[in-house]
Amino acid sequence: MISQRAMGIGGPARPWVQRHRGANRLEQFPLAVWSKLVSRHARNVSRDLMGYGDPMGYGPFREVIAEYLRAFRAVKCELAQIMVTTSPQQALQIAALALLDAKDSAWIEEPAYPGTHQALQAAGARAVPVPVDAEGLNIEYGIQQEGCARVAIVTPSHQFPMGVSMSSMRRLELLSWAREHGGWIIEDDCNSEYDLRGTPVSSLQGLDVDGRVIYVGTLTKAVFPALRLGFIVIPKDLIRSFLDIRNATDTFATSVLYQMAMTDFIREGHFSRHMSRMREVQIETRNALAAAIIAQTAGLLEVVDDEADMQLVTLLPPGLDDVDVAAKLPKLSAAVYALSECYVSRPPRGGLVIGYANLNLEDIPAMLAALKTAIHTSIPKH
Amino acid sequence: MISQRAMGIGGPARPWVQRHRGANRLEQFPLAVWSKLVSRHARNVSRDLMGYGDPMGYGPFREVIAEYLRAFRAVKCELAQIMVTTSPQQALQIAALALLDAKDSAWIEEPAYPGTHQALQAAGARAVPVPVDAEGLNIEYGIQQEGCARVAIVTPSHQFPMGVSMSSMRRLELLSWAREHGGWIIEDDCNSEYDLRGTPVSSLQGLDVDGRVIYVGTLTKAVFPALRLGFIVIPKDLIRSFLDIRNATDTFATSVLYQMAMTDFIREGHFSRHMSRMREVQIETRNALAAAIIAQTAGLLEVVDDEADMQLVTLLPPGLDDVDVAAKLPKLSAAVYALSECYVSRPPRGGLVIGYANLNLEDIPAMLAALKTAIHTSIPKH
Repeated sequence: MISQRAMGIGGPARPWVQRHRGANRLEQFPLAVWSKLVSRHARNVSRDLMGYGDPMGYGPFREVIAEYLRAFRAVKCELAQIMVTTSPQQALQIAALALLDAKDSAWIEEPAYPGTHQALQAAGARAVPVPVDAEGLNIEYGIQQEGCARVAIVTPSHQFPMGVSMSSMRRLELLSWAREHGGWIIEDDCNSEYDLRGTPVSSLQGLDVDGRVIYVGTLTKAVFPALRLGFIVIPKDLIRSFLDIRNATDTFATSVLYQMAMTDFIREGHFSRHMSRMREVQIETRNALAAAIIAQTAGLLEVVDDEADMQLVTLLPPGLDDVDVAAKLPKLSAAVYALSECYVSRPPRGGLVIGYANLNLEDIPAMLAALKTAIHTSIPKH
Repeated sequence: MISQRAMGIGGPARPWVQRHRGANRLEQFPLAVWSKLVSRHARNVSRDLMGYGDPMGYGPFREVIAEYLRAFRAVKCELAQIMVTTSPQQALQIAALALLDAKDSAWIEEPAYPGTHQALQAAGARAVPVPVDAEGLNIEYGIQQEGCARVAIVTPSHQFPMGVSMSSMRRLELLSWAREHGGWIIEDDCNSEYDLRGTPVSSLQGLDVDGRVIYVGTLTKAVFPALRLGFIVIPKDLIRSFLDIRNATDTFATSVLYQMAMTDFIREGHFSRHMSRMREVQIETRNALAAAIIAQTAGLLEVVDDEADMQLVTLLPPGLDDVDVAAKLPKLSAAVYALSECYVSRPPRGGLVIGYANLNLEDIPAMLAALKTAIHTSIPKH
């Protein structure tokens, strides 16, 4: 017999995260520069750095992350609050274990990134789905449904997968719920770098004056997935508890070598150059993809008019089963999956989420043809 | 409010694992060879390996691990069963989450590696301490105490920290308990490479014909801690559940770069040469340390006559508080800590565990002087 939590996770056999976060356009990455930095550090490994490292992560790397978050995401933080993780999934897991006991409940967005739900299941905690509308999470609904939840896990910059950014009013409501109920907010801010609106929305964490927000981010997506570098910004009062959980679950952070190389990559300006270039590439891809869908799949796919980054949400004709449609798709360079996989309950309407992070412009026609075929063969015959 | 599990872990602020597993003599490591392997792979990174990797780990590395375990540890396994982890702690955590729900119970050895208890606490599960005697875990006691436990976590090759190896009779009793009660056995086989008896004891997993044993190992200790490479051998029926937990807690394995470099390091024979050299170094250190303690601390420290590897267990005069003594010690190159930190209940007699993995022979006199001072000043005055 296995644990109920393991049974609960179940679901599709293919790993979620790979499909949902998607990989970036690896051919765009300045691999020569990166390889040079890594081999420079690999050749000059100090024995000091071969032993057990600081479980919070490599100091200089934490410092550049803190600087970056203060400057670009308006996060209020200092080095001592930064814990390096291998991934946002690990960050969610550590936070869930530090804050929730079995049977405790947490609000998750409906729809949400499925890994969020899975992290709660692994912790034995209970997910309370709270709907997302045009202003983001419906806080009032959450309070009515389960005001005493311990945690709310949100993606305020760009809701995943719908893309809306949480309104100022909702941000204040959420912070005041946390203050009044002693709740915690986990802000998953992954991919906020790829804002297609020009001026990125600031973090929710930066508005918090009560130390109720745990901020989760990653460099993995912006750089390359195998990097395995994410981070948590932990409210000062919680650092010790998060560290206890980290020690109980996996001692210390990911590769020191990569943390060293990444510190240089950021300090020497390669990171911001790469980000600017990728932002252009992704805007171009998104616009071309949205235009092609609108022009060529009228009546079959409806583009949800949001500004979600790295994925485009489309809706299917009412009555079609999106899991069924997605199952008919061949392997594509875009990660295409059923919108209903992001829902705990039944979605109001089925759809396809198209993760275009790794999509080349020249692959769009073939992808659209595959989508059309899959949809056509799923429409019930009368 | 933080979770009860986080509160439960608490304990000493310094991370357990760093002290308890200890770091190896880093100056002995063939760093030039290793750096060359790492920079070779860093210069030739294939874009295929920059994306999301197999959550089970890098194939060729899993293959060399499977070969190594079959040849040297008599583990019955194939590549498909090997999951690469960052550490034995992560392996324990994944196993605990996959097999135990909150309030489920697991046998742990008394005394045990404290990280074992912490992994259970993080999972919300309950530890049932089962005493270890000269034959290893007292299975009969465990069955009387809580026969319906779901899991037994054991260190059969060299009990941690006492060093006894589990007798054949006990191994068979434990396997038959697992078969009859549907229990699982987690075999923590870390450091079995450093057997000082000449012929290493074979793994418990190799005796199991019912697929009830989960085998946990690491290369971290034998090579260098910052490597972050451990592994689990998973019974075939459980692979899917372990993978679900892995995806929910941290997607995919540790640095692919290090997995690639380590594959070469093993294949090219550097690993076995390093292990042979380290075995000699460690035997020499252990003998010198034990001899010095016996000669110079009569009446203060009594060496437990076992063959524990990488740590020497010593007992204090009855009535002395080992936590108190350990707190008086200055920073030493050996990791010295109170024996009672390995117990859930009160130990029959206080002691000091001396992790000598990183101890140089020339540091022994200064360490003994520090130990004597700490003990003398702890003896109550009459």
